[in-house]
Amino acid sequence: MLKAAFLYIIFTKKIRSLDIAHYQKEFLTYLESKNWIHEPKNLYEPIDYILKLGGKRIRPVLTLMVSDIFSGDFKKALPAALAVEVFHNFTLVHDDIMDAAPLRRGKPTVHEKWDTNRGILSGDAMLILAYQYFENYDSIVFLKLAKLFSKTALEVCDGQQLDVDFETRSNVTIPEYINMIRLKTSVLVAAALKMGAIVAETSDENAQLIYDFGLNLGLAFQLQDDYLDTFGDPKTFGKQVGGDIIENKKTYLYLKALEVSGKEDIGKLRHFYKKKLKENAVKIGAVRRIFEMNDIPYLIKQEIESYTEKAFATLTKMDLIEEDKKRLKDFGLWLMNRAV
Amino acid sequence: MLKAAFLYIIFTKKIRSLDIAHYQKEFLTYLESKNWIHEPKNLYEPIDYILKLGGKRIRPVLTLMVSDIFSGDFKKALPAALAVEVFHNFTLVHDDIMDAAPLRRGKPTVHEKWDTNRGILSGDAMLILAYQYFENYDSIVFLKLAKLFSKTALEVCDGQQLDVDFETRSNVTIPEYINMIRLKTSVLVAAALKMGAIVAETSDENAQLIYDFGLNLGLAFQLQDDYLDTFGDPKTFGKQVGGDIIENKKTYLYLKALEVSGKEDIGKLRHFYKKKLKENAVKIGAVRRIFEMNDIPYLIKQEIESYTEKAFATLTKMDLIEEDKKRLKDFGLWLMNRAV
Repeated sequence: MLKAAFLYIIFTKKIRSLDIAHYQKEFLTYLESKNWIHEPKNLYEPIDYILKLGGKRIRPVLTLMVSDIFSGDFKKALPAALAVEVFHNFTLVHDDIMDAAPLRRGKPTVHEKWDTNRGILSGDAMLILAYQYFENYDSIVFLKLAKLFSKTALEVCDGQQLDVDFETRSNVTIPEYINMIRLKTSVLVAAALKMGAIVAETSDENAQLIYDFGLNLGLAFQLQDDYLDTFGDPKTFGKQVGGDIIENKKTYLYLKALEVSGKEDIGKLRHFYKKKLKENAVKIGAVRRIFEMNDIPYLIKQEIESYTEKAFATLTKMDLIEEDKKRLKDFGLWLMNRAV
Repeated sequence: MLKAAFLYIIFTKKIRSLDIAHYQKEFLTYLESKNWIHEPKNLYEPIDYILKLGGKRIRPVLTLMVSDIFSGDFKKALPAALAVEVFHNFTLVHDDIMDAAPLRRGKPTVHEKWDTNRGILSGDAMLILAYQYFENYDSIVFLKLAKLFSKTALEVCDGQQLDVDFETRSNVTIPEYINMIRLKTSVLVAAALKMGAIVAETSDENAQLIYDFGLNLGLAFQLQDDYLDTFGDPKTFGKQVGGDIIENKKTYLYLKALEVSGKEDIGKLRHFYKKKLKENAVKIGAVRRIFEMNDIPYLIKQEIESYTEKAFATLTKMDLIEEDKKRLKDFGLWLMNRAV
């Protein structure tokens, strides 16, 4: 399926990328129209800094696109889209502290540029600011947005905690892993889409279907990220290829290998994942070879395809004209269009 | 005024303290009925820990009392009261990280008992949980509560940042200081009261007046705290007397002394507040003497009285029977009834 999809992309790429670029541009104009920095400046400067650090703005674009599709008006979704983006950046600021990460998008992280306390407090303020953007809507829409947002935000915290917990566990199962990435990343993609549906005041059924679409697409995307982190092209993949192996990350590749490999390979894998090394070329090569020998690239691609198909299947059930379903599908294909 | 008030307290103390004890008890029963600990346990255990660490539960009691006064029903205010208490505890968890505080209510702080990451993430979850409790109300009340809550929470962040900023500034003015304590502590007291009014669906005028009552009472309370920290009775004051002097805290006492004292005393004060010592008995004694010689205890008492009177004056404007106004005033007197 993905190969056919890939050809399909070539034909439709121009329209779709323009669509997305349009929402991105409108979102950025809106974001930059906000006056982030005010007193006390020490609290709001880091917020301005992280929000202007760039990124693809995928989540807010989703909110705008869905609102556009269901109501023909994307502008009214701008505050909700901003809430999603501010929340996402809040998670980056606090996660970067927890991971002691020095860099974010090639620039110093907030706690590096200032200090940990500034990162904690500015992050807190961002979480609150996100809720405030919903105040642009009437009480019914506000309640729906805030409710979905709180549920999602708490799930993201759960996912972050599970991710930390997994670091020190040696018996993580694949269903547990899928549940963790669902919480840590997919629910926010799903919620971003559903917020567009809520703002557009479409039916609850459509809102739920678009949520399910996002949840499955989010899982497919995260699994693809696992794949690309080890097997991606260093020229096009944004991060360091092999990073997960260096960090001993228990990704789908690793967990699947533990499930399907023979004793010897399992022993080798567990051995490699015990410590962190200074020189990683040998380790990366060896682990990749074990994955390849055990068909893990094929197995993960099957899984990615399965979630992508699940996502597209929910679109068929939606009360929406075919052209708009195609726009959503095109977005899904665009998102997944990284050489798998 | 405060002396008369004190006599008055002796007569009415029994009824009032029973009132407050009653709300405290009902609130604790409600708090303990909640199942805090669930998966992932590592995220929710610290939340359960901090929420059950005790404290006077003043803020939730305020919410319940005001709801009771305006609608005869305090039980419907329980979720809002819990939101206020969970938020307050969230600020304690994150503030304790920022202050590197080892103890809270005589027990290890969350980041000490577990670690900083656990403190950050559990705190984040608590802030989100606080919003979720408002989902117990219909959309109009929900909007009013969440809006007030977001505004207040952001003000508390502003106050915390200003407090940090003041540590390294030598030119803090008294109006700046009053603004900082207003944001850091008073607005939450005021919001706790107003939430009771919102849940009771009383008039916007009453809700605003009760907010103003809380804001002024909160300022009076905080200034009293400044006074007691230096001049309180070690037997009855909960914290270490002299703590602010040891920490070189620029409290009202210090800032007022810089304003009214002669050159020599100002020089001595500035000298003492330059470093932190291991042995503080001499420093505490000397600083207290400078405050006393310059009439600072009298001046701060005047200020406390002025804010208390302002608080009570707003009660007279309220659309409420005298008996209920008396209950609010009694609460104010109870709160301020620490030997000034």
